[in-house]
Parts: sequence; C-alpha cells; structure tokens
Amino acid sequence: MNRLLLSQKLEEFLSEDIGTGDISTDYVFGEQEQSEGVFVAKEDGIVAGFEIGQEVYDLLATDKFGASFMPLKEDGDYVHKGEVIAKAQGQTKILLSGERIILNLMQRMSGIATATNQAIKILDDPTIQIVDTRKTAPGLRLFDKAAVRLGGGKNHRYALYDMVMLKDNHISFCGSITKAVQRVRKSINLATKIEVEVTSLEQLKESLDNQVDIVMFDNMDPWMIKDLMEVVKGYRDRGNKVLIEASGGINLANIANYKNSGVDYISLGFLTHSVHALDISFVENI
Amino acid sequence: MNRLLLSQKLEEFLSEDIGTGDISTDYVFGEQEQSEGVFVAKEDGIVAGFEIGQEVYDLLATDKFGASFMPLKEDGDYVHKGEVIAKAQGQTKILLSGERIILNLMQRMSGIATATNQAIKILDDPTIQIVDTRKTAPGLRLFDKAAVRLGGGKNHRYALYDMVMLKDNHISFCGSITKAVQRVRKSINLATKIEVEVTSLEQLKESLDNQVDIVMFDNMDPWMIKDLMEVVKGYRDRGNKVLIEASGGINLANIANYKNSGVDYISLGFLTHSVHALDISFVENI
Amino acid sequence: MNRLLLSQKLEEFLSEDIGTGDISTDYVFGEQEQSEGVFVAKEDGIVAGFEIGQEVYDLLATDKFGASFMPLKEDGDYVHKGEVIAKAQGQTKILLSGERIILNLMQRMSGIATATNQAIKILDDPTIQIVDTRKTAPGLRLFDKAAVRLGGGKNHRYALYDMVMLKDNHISFCGSITKAVQRVRKSINLATKIEVEVTSLEQLKESLDNQVDIVMFDNMDPWMIKDLMEVVKGYRDRGNKVLIEASGGINLANIANYKNSGVDYISLGFLTHSVHALDISFVENI
Amino acid sequence: MNRLLLSQKLEEFLSEDIGTGDISTDYVFGEQEQSEGVFVAKEDGIVAGFEIGQEVYDLLATDKFGASFMPLKEDGDYVHKGEVIAKAQGQTKILLSGERIILNLMQRMSGIATATNQAIKILDDPTIQIVDTRKTAPGLRLFDKAAVRLGGGKNHRYALYDMVMLKDNHISFCGSITKAVQRVRKSINLATKIEVEVTSLEQLKESLDNQVDIVMFDNMDPWMIKDLMEVVKGYRDRGNKVLIEASGGINLANIANYKNSGVDYISLGFLTHSVHALDISFVENI
Amino acid sequence: MNRLLLSQKLEEFLSEDIGTGDISTDYVFGEQEQSEGVFVAKEDGIVAGFEIGQEVYDLLATDKFGASFMPLKEDGDYVHKGEVIAKAQGQTKILLSGERIILNLMQRMSGIATATNQAIKILDDPTIQIVDTRKTAPGLRLFDKAAVRLGGGKNHRYALYDMVMLKDNHISFCGSITKAVQRVRKSINLATKIEVEVTSLEQLKESLDNQVDIVMFDNMDPWMIKDLMEVVKGYRDRGNKVLIEASGGINLANIANYKNSGVDYISLGFLTHSVHALDISFVENI
Amino acid sequence: MNRLLLSQKLEEFLSEDIGTGDISTDYVFGEQEQSEGVFVAKEDGIVAGFEIGQEVYDLLATDKFGASFMPLKEDGDYVHKGEVIAKAQGQTKILLSGERIILNLMQRMSGIATATNQAIKILDDPTIQIVDTRKTAPGLRLFDKAAVRLGGGKNHRYALYDMVMLKDNHISFCGSITKAVQRVRKSINLATKIEVEVTSLEQLKESLDNQVDIVMFDNMDPWMIKDLMEVVKGYRDRGNKVLIEASGGINLANIANYKNSGVDYISLGFLTHSVHALDISFVENI
Repeated sequence: MNRLLLSQKLEEFLSEDIGTGDISTDYVFGEQEQSEGVFVAKEDGIVAGFEIGQEVYDLLATDKFGASFMPLKEDGDYVHKGEVIAKAQGQTKILLSGERIILNLMQRMSGIATATNQAIKILDDPTIQIVDTRKTAPGLRLFDKAAVRLGGGKNHRYALYDMVMLKDNHISFCGSITKAVQRVRKSINLATKIEVEVTSLEQLKESLDNQVDIVMFDNMDPWMIKDLMEVVKGYRDRGNKVLIEASGGINLANIANYKNSGVDYISLGFLTHSVHALDISFVENI
Repeated sequence: MNRLLLSQKLEEFLSEDIGTGDISTDYVFGEQEQSEGVFVAKEDGIVAGFEIGQEVYDLLATDKFGASFMPLKEDGDYVHKGEVIAKAQGQTKILLSGERIILNLMQRMSGIATATNQAIKILDDPTIQIVDTRKTAPGLRLFDKAAVRLGGGKNHRYALYDMVMLKDNHISFCGSITKAVQRVRKSINLATKIEVEVTSLEQLKESLDNQVDIVMFDNMDPWMIKDLMEVVKGYRDRGNKVLIEASGGINLANIANYKNSGVDYISLGFLTHSVHALDISFVENI
Repeated sequence: MNRLLLSQKLEEFLSEDIGTGDISTDYVFGEQEQSEGVFVAKEDGIVAGFEIGQEVYDLLATDKFGASFMPLKEDGDYVHKGEVIAKAQGQTKILLSGERIILNLMQRMSGIATATNQAIKILDDPTIQIVDTRKTAPGLRLFDKAAVRLGGGKNHRYALYDMVMLKDNHISFCGSITKAVQRVRKSINLATKIEVEVTSLEQLKESLDNQVDIVMFDNMDPWMIKDLMEVVKGYRDRGNKVLIEASGGINLANIANYKNSGVDYISLGFLTHSVHALDISFVENI
Repeated sequence: MNRLLLSQKLEEFLSEDIGTGDISTDYVFGEQEQSEGVFVAKEDGIVAGFEIGQEVYDLLATDKFGASFMPLKEDGDYVHKGEVIAKAQGQTKILLSGERIILNLMQRMSGIATATNQAIKILDDPTIQIVDTRKTAPGLRLFDKAAVRLGGGKNHRYALYDMVMLKDNHISFCGSITKAVQRVRKSINLATKIEVEVTSLEQLKESLDNQVDIVMFDNMDPWMIKDLMEVVKGYRDRGNKVLIEASGGINLANIANYKNSGVDYISLGFLTHSVHALDISFVENI
Repeated sequence: MNRLLLSQKLEEFLSEDIGTGDISTDYVFGEQEQSEGVFVAKEDGIVAGFEIGQEVYDLLATDKFGASFMPLKEDGDYVHKGEVIAKAQGQTKILLSGERIILNLMQRMSGIATATNQAIKILDDPTIQIVDTRKTAPGLRLFDKAAVRLGGGKNHRYALYDMVMLKDNHISFCGSITKAVQRVRKSINLATKIEVEVTSLEQLKESLDNQVDIVMFDNMDPWMIKDLMEVVKGYRDRGNKVLIEASGGINLANIANYKNSGVDYISLGFLTHSVHALDISFVENI
Repeated sequence: MNRLLLSQKLEEFLSEDIGTGDISTDYVFGEQEQSEGVFVAKEDGIVAGFEIGQEVYDLLATDKFGASFMPLKEDGDYVHKGEVIAKAQGQTKILLSGERIILNLMQRMSGIATATNQAIKILDDPTIQIVDTRKTAPGLRLFDKAAVRLGGGKNHRYALYDMVMLKDNHISFCGSITKAVQRVRKSINLATKIEVEVTSLEQLKESLDNQVDIVMFDNMDPWMIKDLMEVVKGYRDRGNKVLIEASGGINLANIANYKNSGVDYISLGFLTHSVHALDISFVENI
C-alpha cells in the first residue's frame, strides 16, 4: 500500500477512535511504562495487513517513546488458530491505544484475503482470475483491494477514474452501446480501457463490433455463458482481443459451476461488501 | 446522524471513488440530461441510511443542476425482496456518479440493522439489550453505530474518549483493578462511567467493591454468568447499581442460551466486523 | 493531552502565525545558527502546558536541525515571579519562530490553572469539586480542559456528544423534563449520563423522579440550594444516587458562600471564558 | 471578516463541540420542530461578531431546514444590560446546537471590543492609536483582531509574515540592529515595513539611522518616553518619517500616564490575552 | 472537470490569495454594492476554463449576496484580440476578490489549449494524436490536462496510479524490460495498460515480445523512428496491437518532421511545463 | 521557504501524482533495493529549489528506508548544460516515485529565476528593482515568489492580505482615489502600505496628495514615465517619500527602454505566468 496514503488513512482512523484522548489508557499509564504483547490468530485463514502495525505505532509515538511491531508471518501466509503472528513491544500507552485500529483493519483484510483464496480453490480453474468490485467499504478501498491481491485475486479497476465501465444504466440512459462507446472514445486518455456490461447476444455483438477491451456478462448462468463464448471465440479468431468477465450473483456456493466456462475473470462483490473478519487478538505476553 | 460530520464523510467517500472524474459518466452525458430511477431491495431485511441519498446528490450538484432522493420507506422499516424503497430523479450525471456510494453505505447499514434485529428476535428477552462494540469498519463508526440503533439495538460507548473501559490488558499491565480504577477516578470528567472486564469471581468482587458503573463478563458461558449474577444480586441488594454486560463469542447460533441470564447488555462484535450487506440495487425507471 | 490531536492543533496554530514565513527570523538567521534561552515566570501562579514546547519545536524542525525544550518544573507546580521554568536550546530560527505560540498557550493554560486553584482555595470545601463548562475558547477546548485539571479542578462533559445536558431551552422547547428525558433514554448509549438543569422545587422533583444522574441548580443562591438539598437528601435516603451541581453567577467574590452547601460540583464559566493569562517570557540566556 | 476563512473556522469550531452529534438535542427534537429565541446582553458593553450567527446556522442547515439570525444592533454598538441584541428563528435543532459557539465567540469579541474602547477612553488622547499584539488565542486571531477594530482600535501586524519586527531576542542573537536590518532589507518584499524594538537611546539612534519604519519603546515609563521623543523629533525635523510605538506593561490602570507622551501607537497585549467575556445569553422567546 | 475536485481546488487557491482578507476590497466596498464587468481576450487563441468563473463566485458568495459569470464563448473556441468572452455581474466585493484566480487559471488553460492546437496544426497529420505528459504544474494537473483536451489533444495517463510506464530508470535499476514487465503483470489490475520506453531496436523487440500495450520511442529523430516502425509493422502483421508514442525533444520548431512518421502519439512536455499564458483581462463595463 | 508550508505543499503534490500508488515502481522494486542517480542540467541557467529534494524524499520515507538528496550547487547558481547539480542515493522506490515532483518544481523555479536574471541584465540599471506580480500559478505562489528572489528580483506584495493595491477597477467602482484611500486608511493595520495604480497625471497628483506609499504607472511607455517622474520629483523635494512602480506590457524585448526611467520598480507578470521551464533530468549514476 502506498505509504503516504496509508499514513493519512491511519491518522484519520486513529482520530475517529481516540478523539480527545484514550482515557482508559492515558489516565492509568505513564510515559515511562513499557510492555510486550503478541497478536494471535483465533481462526485458520490467510493473514494480511502487517504493514499497518508499525505505521499505527509510529503515528502514536513521540520523539522519546515509541513501540515496535514485529511480524512473524508475511502478508498472504496461511495461519492456524493459536499461532502467534506478530509481537509488539514498547510504550504501554501506544500498545493499548493502537490495538483496536490494528485489529479492526488486519481482521478485515485477513477476512477478505481468506475469502478470495477460498473462491480460487473452489473454482479450481487457473485460466480464470478472481477479481473484486467497487463494492468496498467507503474509505477503505486501499485496504480492501490490497487484501484481494494478497488472497491471490486480481483487482478490477480501482475507481470511477481509471477505466470506463458502461453499465446497464449508462446504456439505457444514453440510448445504445455504440453511442456511449463513441462518446467516451473522444475524451478518454490513452491509458483507459473500456468495458461494457451486456445482458444479451445482441449487446455482446455490438460491444465486440465496437472493439471494447472487456465485456462483462451480467448475471448469466454458466450455460448461457458457454453459448456466448462461442460467439466470442469467433471474434477472437478474427483478431479481436476482448477479455470476458462474468459478474453478478456468483458466490462460494455456485462458483464451481463456472469452472471451464472460458471467461477470463469472475468478479465477486461479496469479497468486500460482506466480509467475515478473521479473528485475531492482542494479548499480554507473559 | 450529525449533518456536518455526515457531509464531511460523504465528501471524502465520493472523492475516493470519483477522484479526478467519473469518466464513464462525464464523457457520455451532458449537463442537461435528466433521468429517473428507483432503489429496489433485492433481499428481505431492515433498511437504513435514507438520509445519505440526498446528501450525496447535494454534494454532486451545482447551482443549476441537482437531483432528488425520495424515500418511500423509513429508516428501520422491514422490507421484502422486490420492494421499491426510494425514487431518484434529476441530472443523469449525478444519479450515476452517486449511485455506488449510496448503495455501499445503505447496503452496509441495512445489513447491520437486519443482523441486530435478528439477534434481538432470537434472544427473545426484553430485559437484555443488544449493544455494539468498537469493532466497526475504521472511518465508518458513525454509520455502523447508527445502523445498530435503527435495528433496535443500543450503542456501547462511541470511542476511547467517552467512557473508561478497563480491559484485560489494562488490568494486567497496571497490576490490579483497584489500582487502575483509582488512577482513572482522579482524572476523568463527571460524565464518564467506568466499566471493567472481569474473568473471575475475584475480579467481579473487586470491581463491585470499587463501585464501577458496569462490569463486563468476558467470554463466559450462560451457566457461569448465572452463578456470578447471584453475587451481583447481593451487591445490588445493598444499593450497588452496577449494570452487567456479557461479551465475547456470542453469535446468532448461541445467543438464545443467554435468555434469562439476567445480564443487562449483550455486546456483539460480529454486528459490525462481519457484516452481510443487504442487497439493494438502483435501476432505471421505465 | 492526546498527542495526535495536540500535534494537529499546534500545526494549525503555527500556520496561523507563520503563514508563508517568519520573515523577521528567516531573513536574519541561517540554518546553522544555534542559540539558548529560558522561559521565565513574570508572575506567581500555577504553570501548565509543558508538553507544548517540544511538540512546537519538533513541528518546526528538519531532519538536520531541531531544538530542545527542557522543563524545569512540572505541570501543576506553583511558581514565583522570576523563576526559570524551562530552558530551550537549538536552532535560532526554531526558537524564535516557535516562541509566541508556546507562550500564548502556556500563558493561557497557566492562567486557567491558577484561577481554578484560587477558586478551590477560596471555597475551602473538599467535598465540593470545581468543574469547568463548555464556555471555552473555540478550538482550544483540549487545552482549556487540561488546564482546569492541572489546577486541581475536574472537567465537566467535554462536548455535546459525551453527555446529555437538558437545559432551560431544551425543556421549554420540548414541553417537560419527563418528556425530554424519555426521548433521550431511547437513543443514548450505555455510557451516557443525563443531567437536567432545574430552577425550581418542582423541576428538581421531576428530575429526581426520572432518575437522572446529575441535577444542576441554575443561578441559585446558597440558601435556596440548602433548602433543595433537603429534598435531595430524602431521595438519596431512598437509594437515589443523584449528584448535584451548582452553576451560574458564581465567581471568586462569592464562591465562599457555597462552602458547606452540600452540592457535589460547582461549575465556573469564568475559568475559561475570562482568562487572565499568567505572564511568562522567553529571554536570551547569557 | 473574510467569509471563506470565517466559514472554515466556524466549521472547525462546530466540529469540536458537536463531534458525532449533539445528543441532548438530536434525540429530543425532530426535523420539523421550529422555535424562536433572543440573544440578550447581560452586561453593558460593546457588542461584536454579528456575522457569526447566520454563518453558524447555515453550516448546520440542510436544504430543507434552516434558521435565521437577525441582528438588532450593529457591530461596535454600545448596549446595556438587558437589551435584546438579536433574534433567531428556525429549526429547534439548529438553534440549540449552534447556540454555544455563537455565544462563545460573540462574548469574546464583545469583551475585546469593550476593553479596547475603555483603553481609548481612559487614555483620552486622539493622537495616539491603541493597537493589539500577536498575543491572541491561538486559532482565533481573525476574531480577536476584528474585535479590536470594532472597539475603535487599530491592528498591529497580523502575523509573522506581513511585517518585520526585530525584537530583543532577534537583535541579541544576531549581534546588532544594523546587521539585522541589513539582512532583512535584502529579502523582504516592497510591501514590508520594518519595526525595531529598542530599550535604550543608543538603540533608538541606531534604528533611526537605519531608516526603519517604526520603533517600539519596550517597557519604558512615560518620562523616559518623553525624553526619547525629543531625539525622535530631531530626526523627524530632518525628514525621517518614523512612527513610534509604546509597548510592555501598559494596562487600564496606568495608560492615562501615557497621555501626551507623543507616541503614535500604544500596543496592549491584555486586550486579547486576558479577555473578560461580555455576558450574553440566548433565551426562549415567549 | 469533476465538480467536487474543482471546488476543493478553487477553495484552496482562493485561500492562498485572500488569506485573512482582501483588504483593498473589503475595506472599500460594502455588502450592498453591485457592479458589472467583462472579460476580454487581449490576444488571439483558444479560450478554456469557463466553468471556473461561476465556481469561484459561488465560493465567495453568502446566502444573500452573490455574482454571476456568464460565458459568451465556449471552452475550445478560437477568439480574437479584443473579443468579450464573458460577462460578470453581482456584488463588487466578489467580482474584485475573485478576479485574479479566475484570470490566472483561464489564462493558463487557454495558453495550453492554444499551444496544443498549434502543435496539431503544424504537425498536420490526423493519424497522429498529440498527447501531454506528467510535466504539469504541481497541484494543477486537473486544469492542465483538461486544457490539452480542449485544445484538441489527448491525455496521456493521468498520474502514477493509472498506467504502468517503465522508463529508462526503471529498466536500468531493475535489470531488464522482461523482468520489469513480468513483475508488474503479477500485481496490476485488469484496467492497467503497460508502456515501455525504448532507446534501441533490441529494447523495442524485447518490449513487443512481452506484449506491452504501448512503446515509447525516446528522443529519436524521425528517420530512426521510420526504421523502427518497419519492425513494428512486422509484429502488427502477426496480430500484435501495440501502439507507438514518440517523445522527447519535440517542439513547435521540429514537430513537422514527424508528419507521416507512422507513430500513433506524440507527447509534448512543453505544453504544460512551459506555458505561454493567453492574455485576458477583466474590465469595468461602462 | 517556510518549512511547515513547504512540507504541506509537497505532500499535496505527491498525493496528486502518486494517489493510490506508483504502480510502475511499487510492483517492480522491493523495500530493500537501493540505487543512486544524479540530477543534470540540460540547459544553461540559474538553478533553484534545492531544499525541495530532501523534503520530498523524507515524505516518502519510512522509519527504516529513506533517501538522501545532496546538492552540488546552491540556489541561485548559474549552471551550464551538462553539469551535475545534485546527487541522490537511497531506496529505489523513493528515488523513482519522487523524481517527477522534484523535477517539475525545480524546473519551474529555475526557469523563473533564469528569466528574472535575464530581465535584470537586459535592463542594466541597478537603481530599478525587478519585481513579480500575483500572476503566479495558483497554489504555487510560495515557490514562484522564492524563485524570483533567487534570480535576483524582489517580491511585490505576497497576496491580497498584506498590502493595499487600489487598481483601476477599485477606483472606478468606488468613485475616486481619494475616497478609496480614505476608506482603507480607517481599517488597515499599521504594517499596511497603500499602492495606487494610475493612468494619468491627474491620478498621479491625487495619489501623491493622499500620501500613498507607492504609485504604479500602468501601461505607460518610457517617455510618458519620464514626464511623470518630473512631477514625482517635485513632490519628493517637498518630503514625499513615494516609490514608483512601472507595470504592464513590459517584457524582455522592450525592458531596455526603461533604463534610466527613474522608477524604483518594474513588475513583470510574465516571470511567473509564462514560465519557460529549465530542462533538468534525473539519470542513473553508473
């Protein structure tokens, strides 16, 4: 994660939680008191977000007093319940005031990475990449997207500014795929790819005829996808390099059905909008 | 939700998603184009976050062009799959650029409210209040806490600054409950309550002897809780007004066991750290 | 004071004063020039705010050049005119550009602490605590509240978010104390205490019947207070744990009249809205 | 006051006081409830800060609900105890949540304006202007300086960036007045005046020989000042246009001694560092 | 330009220029004074940035007083010296305080648009698009990039986050093009294109063999480019869809030499790093 | 440049360019990789902005990894094409991610310094100082003004807040110079100088009669200026200390005509609104 943005985000999160002061800690401990503790996984899964720990401690440190966060695992490692994943040592005030923000973020990121990894394993098709969506928790996209990568997935576009995605509403408000694609082509920069969401054979052909970079099959079952992939194959044989994304309603219960569907990407909204946090706790080290 | 803070938060979230521009929308639609759409529930559950809609549209509006968000339900209403919960009308650019932030937040808030409501129904004990924790998504506490209230729960302290909570780490780092309570009593303001987390009978008695406002039973099963409540009853008979919170490891599968346990509050971390987003979508209104 | 917030505040204050540059200093001194100086009390009183000094210097420091602020007294110490309270040593530019902000804040905090201490001494009743109000200088509440504590007082609620205080306007706009208390009880979190401002015996009884946590006697003379305390005593004998605050029009000239009045708190707006700054100056150390 | 900066400042102050929500108000009153009230002076003095009222209400308003602040006096008017100085009408929530910030600022500004006016009256010498200093409450300089003007005073430089002021520490750290003046002359812009603080006849002559714009007599009694003014007169007769400021230790008790001293300005730190707030209250309008 | 970002930027720019107040205007004009004026082109060229005018006025407006900016031309229009391009009417204070920021931005944007247009005309080859670089004035990229589009050019990537560009330093620090491309392919999102800067035939082939999206010919003269385009043609005949950019040392004096060079893009740093502002002035409308 | 403001500005500029991450660098290089490079002038001219380098690297550094910027020249030095002006050494990621912002700013500042220096040389009259204007790139005034000083020029007022400048629009909107000067005199602080723009003999006399500090001759040719300087001389002989600025339409082609014109300042808008960036590049150090 970009350090400058990471630091700005963590400062904002610490301000939300600490505000005018962590009174349980500030009024109990002095500047000189030092402690040690460990971060322990309470569930099996992939751990992610280790760089958060030291950044949080540094934001709470003064010139004279600080704390060290020492990872014992790496981002993306699979850990088992009970494993110590990191050690912490330093000013007691810092360890206690920073604990919750570190845990809230690492638990969320680890949960996302773990779910991504599960999806990849269940799908069991190395020709298809699992990607995320913009259905991230507002303000946390940097963390949510990094967690998907750490779980073995790929990121879809980061936001509204780095790729054109013409969805159902764009197309119906605008009139046609062709019209919408032509309009954006006039203004986009040379780095910008265009993706179009299609719901029918006609829309697929219109998109391919417009040489878009990616086509998203929205809410289609695996059989419909296989039929449409025949059409795609025909275009590809004629040099069209389109990539295909399947999206909508795909979850851990049905993703196996998409094995061998021939698409390049499957995007999963639940990875980031319905996160199961991986349980991690911070305990005194005796 | 406080309007000033709500507006600051939404501006930040829109900046994260739109950045230098929503190129799919800005390059397709002109300032004059107007559209209509509806927000539809795709799952049964409690809906929450209606005030977000108009605020998002106002942040994207100019003096000349805007959009209206018209709720058809109220915060806290139970809705069924397929129900239209709000209408939107106005500048096409605003409707499309604001859609995802409104949905990401309303889906999260509705998911939290729905889970809170489920917990209350399964527990089925009106003498016990369901409360949240600080295990919220960083940056989203305002929304997460409001959603718990809208689902029928109560909020625990908002953050580290508005209540003293002496947890296991505070006590072990400090030495004893008595010592920690005495230290905070010297400095806290007259509005501040003190809660202590206990894991044993001895700690309970020490807390009650120190006249703390709330005691949290950490990770105790219902039988242990019932035993300790006998001790609490003895203190209460002697005028001690302590309130009791059960916390740790309680979920929808086991919460029914805590019925009639006699505690005043049950706090549930999963309400906010492991949210199942309620599915809502925005579709063109034909 | 919470370090993260302290640092943000000091950066803002330095920006207000230095803006695009301290031209008297930047154009006279080079990066290499070093100096020493001392902070001297020019009046007797309690000194407060020592942690500000080093934070200011650190904000103005570069990787290569800094300055040290070395306190010779502690927050809350009583000092006499002429005493050296701190030494400073380091880059001349930093010492001169930071001087005024350090002095403006320490003089204000010391003035508040001194006045708080005077009030406590004049009142001469250890059963009554002196507390502050929300009548602080906007933007400076962190400093003003800390200064009251350092002078021996207690803080009232920090702000509008950490306690319910139903004042005359709330009650008259709402209709009755009972109605207002019932409404807030529905929504407040478990950490929130409720205080009600009363101006009559009827309001006192209504408040006590509603089991509020604190009652404020607004603008009452000591004789009226003593009468009402009889009523309070009756409720307390029946287990009500209400605390009583006297407020309004109390100053150093009349506070002695409130000795033995039986209230728990006396709140004094003048402590923070009409501060007499304690004179401190920074002088070259020869 | 500059509207853009005023609005940014007031938003910051409201955030400090309201934070995550004014729970006493938000949980009692609905969006539809409307009220009226009046701002009443509780002391005689000069009132100042009227533009703050409407700005605060606008920051708290939504598109649908707002409040109006209607001044009945003007900035700088002298009012008597009991006079209604402004009316307010609108959403109850806005009136109550904004009340304290409006009062805290108007009381402070009115206190400063009143003290400035007293100083002018006691001095009773229209050839000498009363000016302020940089001893303002950090973050509030915009308000403090405006209040001095409204009380009939003049502002000294605004901050470290808009004028060179070589004080005792600059001169002693640098070596001599001549050296310091020469250095700043090389870099300052054409709008920048230079003032030098002097404590002796020699320093006065050195300053005048260096053609500085203003000389400040630091901590001199009126007799010493009159002697030095003879020297100044000699330079003025030879075309030197220097202006003279007296500063240090001047207060309401001794300012009358400076009448006819011949200086152009008297600067008074206490105007802004030791403010007596003018009492104003907001009450329900029956 | 995205409205939210535009508004944030303009607020920052107005704060830089107005700070604590436009004293020439605030102390001369009252709230009620109204005026009219016109914006006049003082040179021939393409005008750009009209949306800035109204946004600036709105930021300076209060609820009661505002100003209107009425464009008489459109962004991208070619105007002649002496033409009135916009009218303004409203509060005198707003017209005068906002004048300089509007002019500074519109003059810069118009200068960039005009230079872009000149480059296109001199090149006179519709198969080659003129694109910009990241050599924009820091903080002004939104404006600089929009101006290039308004002048008829295309934008290159917006920033470091929306495209991979492996430049000479990346390649030499990393070891080889192949190694660098392989590394980024592992982590980039599906929207991200890869461009490689090449300085030799070997690097070109290595890039093409790695299937990069765009190749930049760095500092090559037209003859060298034509030779390399033969190689590119060979790859394209085998289905490679690479695009070619020429960059480095191309200016208005030599760009005509690149006509028919066969490249797809020519990027010009001087468009934004060495801007000739188009002269525009604001004058009273009699 | 003031360090606090410099650091805030650079953080903003880095955020604009890096956003969510420098993907070309972050995905290619690890934390441990170190490199070296040099900054080389590609054109003759004056170099400026050296303090930017280390500040940029420090903003991108973590506790464990950083980079050093080592100037080999000083601000204001004249360098020749091919000269190495600085060395850099440290973490590869930092060197590459910070390169463009350092170059964009140093090239702009060096271009401004070089042009200022050219103007001084062509004018060849040490009695006249070259000054800048407010026609700076919005957001970059700190850098643009510093560059003018480094090139040997003087700064005009910094912004709207540190000097009164009554321009044509102020005077025509207000009615007369006398009226406008009298109004501002009532409110300005003692540090504030007043400048008036004049276009005729009558306006000059009116300004001088009003004892303004500076008079600007707007758009006058050298002959007209010499005539008016006779009038100025008359006033000066009678003790008026007015300074004279020539402004409007003066450029490198005609500035020599203003030699011996007798004015004190010539202000040049093109120095900052139409900058020719001095070419500097960063290359791997072999």
